[in-house]
Amino acid sequence: MEVVLGVSNRHIHLSKEDYITLFGDEELVKVRDLVQTGEFASNLFVTIATSKNKIEKVRVLGPLRSYTQVELSKTDCYFLGLDAPIRTSGDLTDACSVTIIGPCGTLTKNCAIIANRHLHLNHEDRVRLGLVNVEKISIKVKSNKSAILNDVYVKETPQGVLEVHLDTDDANGCFLKTGDMVELIF
Amino acid sequence: MEVVLGVSNRHIHLSKEDYITLFGDEELVKVRDLVQTGEFASNLFVTIATSKNKIEKVRVLGPLRSYTQVELSKTDCYFLGLDAPIRTSGDLTDACSVTIIGPCGTLTKNCAIIANRHLHLNHEDRVRLGLVNVEKISIKVKSNKSAILNDVYVKETPQGVLEVHLDTDDANGCFLKTGDMVELIF
Repeated sequence: MEVVLGVSNRHIHLSKEDYITLFGDEELVKVRDLVQTGEFASNLFVTIATSKNKIEKVRVLGPLRSYTQVELSKTDCYFLGLDAPIRTSGDLTDACSVTIIGPCGTLTKNCAIIANRHLHLNHEDRVRLGLVNVEKISIKVKSNKSAILNDVYVKETPQGVLEVHLDTDDANGCFLKTGDMVELIF
Repeated sequence: MEVVLGVSNRHIHLSKEDYITLFGDEELVKVRDLVQTGEFASNLFVTIATSKNKIEKVRVLGPLRSYTQVELSKTDCYFLGLDAPIRTSGDLTDACSVTIIGPCGTLTKNCAIIANRHLHLNHEDRVRLGLVNVEKISIKVKSNKSAILNDVYVKETPQGVLEVHLDTDDANGCFLKTGDMVELIF
């Protein structure tokens, strides 16, 4: 079975409190809907800094969440001097400390992770595909640098839309881009 | 069968003529031997520039070769605005134009590629492993982001030492580093 791929570049999710610290009363404007229902790319950016380096133009995704989370690639982490853990979005256990710089303020918190490879779906998809109680699967990707990528976590949400998410390291390593089709293996 | 992994960060090989343009009469000093016999990391760096961006501190590998070649990752290529082809080292067909900046001079030439995944070996290894007439194999890598990577080209040279080379996109995507062991599949 084939599913569409979404490649996640580095980005940030913000809590309301942290949003106000960084952007004051500026409005979070939707630039583009993402595939996952309700999620969108906004018009706003922050700078992520560490004592070693900084990365500018990290996009804020909307809507605001109950927590602040920076999702980086391993390549970004080497650049910033971080040893961030691989996590499912929302799990900030042992997340690395980074400084987030916005136009109205700055804050430093333990919120940087590397998101795991994952498959978005809703409960109906999960039952239909026979993935109830399955924690992770593999995907087969076709390109001039083809591969089977394991450790793809099944991420069920009520509004989930069938889509595989990879970070830029995996996608660039395998010469893949958003919109490519990948084969689920389980 | 397990083989050691070498992760190739972006680097440059230089012809004697181009070396003199960039570095004048400065000596190419060995800093560290690489696994492949005779190859070494030098003390010298160049900047690689395009109309979009530039990457500083790209290391010169020695010894000098009969051609100049810049090896980049796909991530580097996005940053520089290049659509470089995947090639075996030494094959500069359709290589991208970049500007190379050294302390003594600058040159622009079609020399940027993305090196393919490859397995170094010598003829004896090839015969022993049953890889005569085999163009490419796969490797199985173990980590928290495990994978089977295909399209690993078999690269025989007289002085070849058994070693798999991946670029930083593949290595970072799969949480691998130089010295890790990978399993050959063929």
